[in-house]
Amino acid sequence: MNLDAQWIVGFVDGEGCFHVAVNRHPEMTAGFQVLPEFTVVQHKRDVQVLHALKAFFGCGVVRTNHGDRMAFRVRSRTHLVERVIPFFERHPLKTRKRVDFMKFRRILLRMADGDHLTAKGIEEIRRIAAQMNRGSSR
Amino acid sequence: MNLDAQWIVGFVDGEGCFHVAVNRHPEMTAGFQVLPEFTVVQHKRDVQVLHALKAFFGCGVVRTNHGDRMAFRVRSRTHLVERVIPFFERHPLKTRKRVDFMKFRRILLRMADGDHLTAKGIEEIRRIAAQMNRGSSR
Repeated sequence: MNLDAQWIVGFVDGEGCFHVAVNRHPEMTAGFQVLPEFTVVQHKRDVQVLHALKAFFGCGVVRTNHGDRMAFRVRSRTHLVERVIPFFERHPLKTRKRVDFMKFRRILLRMADGDHLTAKGIEEIRRIAAQMNRGSSR
Repeated sequence: MNLDAQWIVGFVDGEGCFHVAVNRHPEMTAGFQVLPEFTVVQHKRDVQVLHALKAFFGCGVVRTNHGDRMAFRVRSRTHLVERVIPFFERHPLKTRKRVDFMKFRRILLRMADGDHLTAKGIEEIRRIAAQMNRGSSR
């Protein structure tokens, strides 16, 4: 299955999620671990679409999410910065999910600068992450 | 907002619904009313996307669906047959929603032949409609 870039944008506008978890983690330099991830969840009957996304982006994994649902998931910061983010920069989302994407992008750029390793940087990342996925339609 | 055909396919693969209600209706010739509809539901924050779909297809309405959710909805058989169905024939869906679409299309073609006005036709339409939206991921 070959996917068109605009099909992917439309599908992710509907089904995609850009999420950043910020978890307490005493062993990390600033006491928190920042975990950005891009996911697309589908019923297992459409797992071939998730594999096509994985092939298109050339990264990520397809795993069981919950019950009958499967997820395509990219957690590698390198892959997010080099593959996922540039794609959605070139092909903008059309729904308000674009706003979540821009925040996701800001956090990953800050992490590239090492901001997540300082208390001040973590505070700012937590502030941005708290504003994401709030108007979720689910 | 201008929508690309492949964006629409991707978005409908995620968020669209092809549904046929078959309701008892004593005043109809065969005792049943057949109501096909194509809908796309979104949180009201993205109502502009629904208006863009309405403009693209040149038919349908955008209305409140439930609570904070809005729907783009096409119920006119003429518009479904002349605008919605030809679009998805030219631009095939990539998920299993394609199977629902093909059943939706079969029912509308049968209605064009007047099948919904005979008891035998209604029986066949109900049989097809009962097989739709079963593997729904919602």
